[in-house]
Amino acid sequence: MPNGYNGKLLRVDLTSGELKDEHPEDALYRKYLGGSAMAMHYILEEMPAGVDALSPDNMLVFMLSVVTGAPISGQSRLMACAKSPLAVGIGDSQAGGFFPAELKFAGYDGIIVKGKAEKPVYLWVNNGQAELREAGHLWGKVTGEVEDTLRAELGDPKVEVLQIGPGGENLVKFAAIMNMCNRALGRTGMGAVMGSKNLKAIAVRGSKKVTVSNSKALTELYRKGTREIPNDGGMSMLQSYGTPGVVGGQQASGGLPSFNYNAGNIDNYEHLTGEYMAETILKENDTCFSCTIRCKRVVEKEDPVYALHEKYGGPEYETVACLGSYCGVTDLPAVAKANEYCAMYGLDTISCGATIAFAMECFENGLLTTEDTGGLDLSMGNAASVVELTRMIALREGIGDLLAEGSLRAAQKIGKGAEDYLITVKGTEIPAHMPQVKRSLGVVYATNPFGADHMSSEHDPSYTPDNKKALARLAEVGLHTPQDPLVLNTEKVRFAFITQCLYSLLDSVGVCQFVWGPSWQLYGHSELVDMVNAVTGWNLSLVEALQVGERRLNMQRAFNMRDGIDKSEDKLPKKFFKELTGEGPSKGIKLTHEELDRGLQQYYRIAGWDESTGNPTRGKLESLGLEWVANVVGAK
Amino acid sequence: MPNGYNGKLLRVDLTSGELKDEHPEDALYRKYLGGSAMAMHYILEEMPAGVDALSPDNMLVFMLSVVTGAPISGQSRLMACAKSPLAVGIGDSQAGGFFPAELKFAGYDGIIVKGKAEKPVYLWVNNGQAELREAGHLWGKVTGEVEDTLRAELGDPKVEVLQIGPGGENLVKFAAIMNMCNRALGRTGMGAVMGSKNLKAIAVRGSKKVTVSNSKALTELYRKGTREIPNDGGMSMLQSYGTPGVVGGQQASGGLPSFNYNAGNIDNYEHLTGEYMAETILKENDTCFSCTIRCKRVVEKEDPVYALHEKYGGPEYETVACLGSYCGVTDLPAVAKANEYCAMYGLDTISCGATIAFAMECFENGLLTTEDTGGLDLSMGNAASVVELTRMIALREGIGDLLAEGSLRAAQKIGKGAEDYLITVKGTEIPAHMPQVKRSLGVVYATNPFGADHMSSEHDPSYTPDNKKALARLAEVGLHTPQDPLVLNTEKVRFAFITQCLYSLLDSVGVCQFVWGPSWQLYGHSELVDMVNAVTGWNLSLVEALQVGERRLNMQRAFNMRDGIDKSEDKLPKKFFKELTGEGPSKGIKLTHEELDRGLQQYYRIAGWDESTGNPTRGKLESLGLEWVANVVGAK
Repeated sequence: MPNGYNGKLLRVDLTSGELKDEHPEDALYRKYLGGSAMAMHYILEEMPAGVDALSPDNMLVFMLSVVTGAPISGQSRLMACAKSPLAVGIGDSQAGGFFPAELKFAGYDGIIVKGKAEKPVYLWVNNGQAELREAGHLWGKVTGEVEDTLRAELGDPKVEVLQIGPGGENLVKFAAIMNMCNRALGRTGMGAVMGSKNLKAIAVRGSKKVTVSNSKALTELYRKGTREIPNDGGMSMLQSYGTPGVVGGQQASGGLPSFNYNAGNIDNYEHLTGEYMAETILKENDTCFSCTIRCKRVVEKEDPVYALHEKYGGPEYETVACLGSYCGVTDLPAVAKANEYCAMYGLDTISCGATIAFAMECFENGLLTTEDTGGLDLSMGNAASVVELTRMIALREGIGDLLAEGSLRAAQKIGKGAEDYLITVKGTEIPAHMPQVKRSLGVVYATNPFGADHMSSEHDPSYTPDNKKALARLAEVGLHTPQDPLVLNTEKVRFAFITQCLYSLLDSVGVCQFVWGPSWQLYGHSELVDMVNAVTGWNLSLVEALQVGERRLNMQRAFNMRDGIDKSEDKLPKKFFKELTGEGPSKGIKLTHEELDRGLQQYYRIAGWDESTGNPTRGKLESLGLEWVANVVGAK
Repeated sequence: MPNGYNGKLLRVDLTSGELKDEHPEDALYRKYLGGSAMAMHYILEEMPAGVDALSPDNMLVFMLSVVTGAPISGQSRLMACAKSPLAVGIGDSQAGGFFPAELKFAGYDGIIVKGKAEKPVYLWVNNGQAELREAGHLWGKVTGEVEDTLRAELGDPKVEVLQIGPGGENLVKFAAIMNMCNRALGRTGMGAVMGSKNLKAIAVRGSKKVTVSNSKALTELYRKGTREIPNDGGMSMLQSYGTPGVVGGQQASGGLPSFNYNAGNIDNYEHLTGEYMAETILKENDTCFSCTIRCKRVVEKEDPVYALHEKYGGPEYETVACLGSYCGVTDLPAVAKANEYCAMYGLDTISCGATIAFAMECFENGLLTTEDTGGLDLSMGNAASVVELTRMIALREGIGDLLAEGSLRAAQKIGKGAEDYLITVKGTEIPAHMPQVKRSLGVVYATNPFGADHMSSEHDPSYTPDNKKALARLAEVGLHTPQDPLVLNTEKVRFAFITQCLYSLLDSVGVCQFVWGPSWQLYGHSELVDMVNAVTGWNLSLVEALQVGERRLNMQRAFNMRDGIDKSEDKLPKKFFKELTGEGPSKGIKLTHEELDRGLQQYYRIAGWDESTGNPTRGKLESLGLEWVANVVGAK
């Protein structure tokens, strides 16, 4: 079988309508592996500084990786990068599903989109051929309808569709890009970027085989993983209850963000659990291409108020927290309905839920009134209002128009101290893992180039003395001294940075972070390297792989640096420094500025960044083979 | 078989006569692996700043590693570290042989020597027991006699002896520590440190088995290597001609330092080659414990002038260059005789040869006269004078007393511009690989913590387009873009730094750099990791291994920093910036300050060191799990 990687990218200029194939060299694939590392390569090379995120000058880059579509669990993911209309700086999001593998089967590793179409269009990629088509008839339609329409007009029920919903069309700042109507490239508003380009959808169909250099090794790895699932507590839990299976544990540790992050627990949390979902509204499990874990939820319910349709999947943990406990809500069908709206209209459930929770705290404190809301009662805990507000945000109706700007911009408009109720970093709403009880997340949330993200590093509980499986894997990257989750010391900052590089690798090689990862996942990073080698025939090492992750992180941070964004944006919400309320074990816990500031300075030092600016140094970029990036962004 | 490493160190306080065993934890072994990384751990923890290298306060630490004594090629090496009496800063040297494995069989991984004995003593380590014994009867004796005497008085011909000769007793600044009378821990004057402590020798005998966790894997690796030797040009050359097998290639590239480094070639070089040695004075090959390569030369010659005795081995490449071409000499028996003197008296052949070459250039230019030399004709090319001067240096006779101080101190005493003739960095004489034609060596020579060293990084020719075997291995550490040997650019500085970390790893895991290494060697670094795991049962990764190498380098540099040594000492001899003479391909080539300075700044940046001081930053130390070192040395 051949060694090395022979791939192809599609370039789309929406302004001119021109489409073009490009064949990157094998060396470029080995340097970046794909995903958002490779996307950053093109963005930094070709995009000027300081563009408006919603202007035609923004580039929207979709990338697979060298392993996407190979027959193994957890590889079918698509990454999208562009300047973010929500976050201050770069945007980045990912999702799994069948679209990623299908795009590979259609002959492409990525699509680089520039410019803006005069009228709505969609891109039709069919087995190595691509064309732009009119999409006027799709504009304004929800995702399910668009998918059905496209499959019908393209005459193939197996066409996979990536699209924006009305949320993206309406430039909701946290609009998602949807795949299969239920997988969201949710974070940082990539849907708004796609909407700003008048690109409604990308439909793909392909039948090309993925080349695997060592099929036997890959098959063995696949089978080994599959055999292990029943013996692996984490994997079995995912299979049985999906990500909402963690709700109970979060509540038990006082780490279930509730009431707009004022508490770490909520009464009646049992009704938000994966177990409760399985007993009530769960129809079945769903999966991504070639994955044996099948963690994805499908819910269904006939109901006059909260009817749930299987097409739109079911809520993940982040969703039950953000649209549930964040808002003081424990009504699972209501949460699932709001989730369905997010899938239909194309919104990020995390930012949407957190923005609603923010609005509710404003309402509770009189900064918003029924006059502002058009009569909608935004009292904390009002489930019906959460559902209704989700729809209003997507369609920019009433108060929804304000909240569609994201909570940071909304707070600036509301004034009157509304910023005290924000739970954002760099404009990105904070996901449902609390740095109060997982201290390393504080530095990662603060420093992560596209704002607070829970999938950008390993969480503290993995680095505790009893976690033998995780410790064995962490040892391989030089982490040998487990720590208390409530402590932020030098070793914990090392853990944060090193695992951040590893998660950055995962988003470059484009694999699911429940299947592949540095600690509790089904496969460890050494097996990830073996997998890449089985597919490509390379002799990639863990050293190179870790460098790829560090490259992506530095490139994203360098992008921000060029746009004038430095460590002054690396800060956590004010409320994180106030004692948590609630009655759980986290009651009374707060972060301190002293601890965080010390941790941040350590983080910059350990990352090899300039302590005074938080920017990547020329030396760090040079050491990663990125001297050209240092030149592009003017690193010192 | 057991997992993890269970080892023991011997602590020797020569002042009090106290001996003590110490059992480091498995985690400490995994962090350092052994060798000079582990030695630096103890030195930085226990030795105060600013000690005089020849005072009792200096610590002399001998270390093996977790793999020493295991049945595989290239593992039987001993590392010695202390503050150097020759180099400005830390000292570091290594040698192979049978002593290292024997020390492991005797139950120890290392010996930490402090203080100073009142009278000469030797240390007798016998199967887990150790004692200090009187050595008055051995003082003043040459190595061969001491070894015979000790074996006789200990009643065991298999006792292995590590010792200083009269050179070390006389505190010759570049005195070596000898093992088997023909393996020199040569560089940076460790023999003088041992002499200053009145420690004449360490005799060891042991019968303990080395624990191997996975014997099958180790045996397979051993056999794989052995099978490959005949098909491997480099290994076959080593086996047939030893290291002097490279003389022809060096001459051909204009990289054979000649006439005190004024030229890169010499007429009649053929008489210095390994081939010529094999035809004339070679008796047989010798080997180190369990090594199948057998590269070591044994020469013998009955001769009224230059009689050669097999006990003292034969000259390596460095020796034929330094005691030969450096001095304009191509008389192999004379070079071999000078080499024998170095082995008998315990001197480093590199520093000795380079110091004599320096003296010869002084003599040629009238800075030294026969009045200074007691009549000895130091004309460049006078072979008999090289031999005689070697003996005189060891015994500090006449002009030998001045030169025994090393060339830097000698130049300072001679004055009159003698410093222009120096070929030293930080006081350490430069070995026989020319940065003029291997440009990366310029930055490594200049920055290496214990002065110019040719075994501290890979050489440029390994990183050229045709070198497939080396390129495959270098790719595993992220080096993908081969370069011209005559160029020093960013990629070449990356190559220098990354391979320096890998060589630093080799001196920590204590393996032979002809057998294990990052490029042309029999085994690559991935196999090195496999080997460590086969022995220890760990799951060590290449990432961790590379960190060990970077740790050692940073710890050595941090040691220097604490003693006030910074980048102002990172400079190359003046003559490197003058055009080379000679008639070879390097004629007319010179380094430029502009290129070197740019390379040095890039090197500091890539190393993560402070560009203005060249010192390790706190962040770099923290990132390597060495926050405590940052505290000890006051890193910022």
